[in-house]
Amino acid sequence: MECDDSKQTGAGRLPDTQQGMRRRNLSRVLHTVAADGPLSRAGVASRIGLTRAAVSTLVDELIRAGLLEELGPERPARVGRPGSALAVSAHGPAGIGAEVGVDHLAVCVVDLRGAVRARAVRQVDNRARTPKAVLADLTALVRQMVVEAGQEGLRPAGLAIAVPGLVARGTHTVVRAPNLDWHDADLSAWLPAELPLAVDNEANFGALAELWLGDAAPADFLHVSAEIGIGAALVVDGRLLRGSRGFAGELGHVPVWPEGPECACGGRGCLEQYAGEEAVLRAAGLPPGADRVAVLAERAAAGDEQVRVALRDAGAALGIALTGAVNLLDPRAVVLGGALSRLAPWLVPSLEDELGRRIAGPGCDVVVSSIGSEGPLLGAAHAVVRAVLDDPMGVVV
Amino acid sequence: MECDDSKQTGAGRLPDTQQGMRRRNLSRVLHTVAADGPLSRAGVASRIGLTRAAVSTLVDELIRAGLLEELGPERPARVGRPGSALAVSAHGPAGIGAEVGVDHLAVCVVDLRGAVRARAVRQVDNRARTPKAVLADLTALVRQMVVEAGQEGLRPAGLAIAVPGLVARGTHTVVRAPNLDWHDADLSAWLPAELPLAVDNEANFGALAELWLGDAAPADFLHVSAEIGIGAALVVDGRLLRGSRGFAGELGHVPVWPEGPECACGGRGCLEQYAGEEAVLRAAGLPPGADRVAVLAERAAAGDEQVRVALRDAGAALGIALTGAVNLLDPRAVVLGGALSRLAPWLVPSLEDELGRRIAGPGCDVVVSSIGSEGPLLGAAHAVVRAVLDDPMGVVV
Repeated sequence: MECDDSKQTGAGRLPDTQQGMRRRNLSRVLHTVAADGPLSRAGVASRIGLTRAAVSTLVDELIRAGLLEELGPERPARVGRPGSALAVSAHGPAGIGAEVGVDHLAVCVVDLRGAVRARAVRQVDNRARTPKAVLADLTALVRQMVVEAGQEGLRPAGLAIAVPGLVARGTHTVVRAPNLDWHDADLSAWLPAELPLAVDNEANFGALAELWLGDAAPADFLHVSAEIGIGAALVVDGRLLRGSRGFAGELGHVPVWPEGPECACGGRGCLEQYAGEEAVLRAAGLPPGADRVAVLAERAAAGDEQVRVALRDAGAALGIALTGAVNLLDPRAVVLGGALSRLAPWLVPSLEDELGRRIAGPGCDVVVSSIGSEGPLLGAAHAVVRAVLDDPMGVVV
Repeated sequence: MECDDSKQTGAGRLPDTQQGMRRRNLSRVLHTVAADGPLSRAGVASRIGLTRAAVSTLVDELIRAGLLEELGPERPARVGRPGSALAVSAHGPAGIGAEVGVDHLAVCVVDLRGAVRARAVRQVDNRARTPKAVLADLTALVRQMVVEAGQEGLRPAGLAIAVPGLVARGTHTVVRAPNLDWHDADLSAWLPAELPLAVDNEANFGALAELWLGDAAPADFLHVSAEIGIGAALVVDGRLLRGSRGFAGELGHVPVWPEGPECACGGRGCLEQYAGEEAVLRAAGLPPGADRVAVLAERAAAGDEQVRVALRDAGAALGIALTGAVNLLDPRAVVLGGALSRLAPWLVPSLEDELGRRIAGPGCDVVVSSIGSEGPLLGAAHAVVRAVLDDPMGVVV
């Protein structure tokens, strides 16, 4: 399964034949009802610029495949015969999203309407556990979720997994996940073979969640998130920019002070040396441990001066690294997600000061994500749902 | 005119109707013959996966419109009846490319086969001249080229202009061109109204030239060029990344040493303060003047130690800024174009040293452009040609 990361209605890569056109039009109908429904056939037709007759044929096919359902006659709000309102099915295919965190595993089920229908989380220290051991636990959770989905009348259409590491583009291989100590691990070997699979970096799925679910996310933004490391993902014209090998978005290793402290990546003075969790905890005088972000937020809120200075300095380093990123990429906004969204009140002032004094002209908005640390898990599940909306023919037999 | 900056065959944004499909298929036929011709109708059909009959209809239309021509029977190298070889027309529409430089104006005419059919260059110091005065000179050159194109049997299909400044996306407005001292200048007011117009930053057209004409340019690269300032343009999956407002690629203002010298952009320690022409000349002990890049290259080649140190330090600063860019963007290669290509022997070693010691893993190739300072002019002319190949219906009446 390839995740399509577009905001546009889909199946754009299908061949340009009658058959390809039909598949694209099925996708356009389904996307339109998903976005704007309930809608009558006439409402769909006027939105996508096809005839009412053409839309009716497509709708019938989508109903037969269990992707659309009729809600009954619309209220007669307008002149003319009332049409029957259409909605995407709440009992059709569903996306299974999963997250491998350093401290936890999570799985959820999202239906075509975007509702979370089941969810399971397990706290577990995954540091230095093998991929095989971690994925055995994850598979157990996935199977439990598949059973629950079935009890709700849903059919899992695929499984997408967010991991805290670099994933080679177009593969299921985690090339490097430093905080798990995983290298070149092909995850497909240890996962249920019956579900189409996608594996991607957590920052990418977090950015996609922001694009698809966020409050008014623009079509161009840089999504910055932090858990243990600092990751970023670029959305350009409504599409994720993955880089030639899938490694784009390594904001944590942008040099801030070129002769600063050595970094595990081999560089010096990388952003992570100033704004990564470990660096901030050290500067704040706090030991490492579970859920340090909550502790930092608590202490900063209580007025702890050392913690506030540590966060202010981290915000300034973020501002310097982001100056480079904004100059290179010209995003409409920088969105702070993950742990950064919880620490935003103490990071943002110094971050905006640096951006403001360094960038000429209108610069770039800095906004805080409304999704926060749920992003990667929801982004993964929705990636499967989008894949169904983008090519319903994968389901319509 | 919108320049399509895609490497893929075009008209991808046309509506998904029979008419849209026909326009896309005309484009696919024309692109295929342009890329691989001379070709028979059967050769085209097998390459694009349409029937021979469908291709024949499309070809007839393109011949009637003067976009394709028949070269006569192919050599009977294979079994069966020889087909007639098709080529794109050498007497059809042509692209007019123009460049506004700080020290010169240039215009050229490129035919559908990609051949430069006419060219004019005028040395003129454009610093602090008004857009109106500069564009009056440019218009005179353009009119002369239109006449020469006509004498060659070519019909100009549009005019594209490369400028050394930021151009607001989707407009003809130069928002800021510091070395010309232009601000918010809508160029369309002073240019021939009869030609469809495109205006873009010189670094963007330089990168497109590299994409379309370079020796084996990959589909993902960061093109870095310098004349007076330092610009960059990102090509991602064969498309130019313009940024939300058209301002992406400002590599010259990525912070290298955050508390370094003040920059005209308002920031501190920007790359231009270490690797821009003015900074390098100062470090090399050379006064400003005409064609300083040639002087730098000459002195460096002759073993001038001060010049070599200045270029080595500039290369190191480039390497630090590019470390950030490569971590963010994961391009397949960094391509050095414009003035940088002439200075590459003395810049590249320190640049590669910095990249090599800072970036973990396979990193990124550094290659020198084979096109050099002609890039922006050729890129502009080819942008017009590509617009014709992408939507021949703009020409087929």
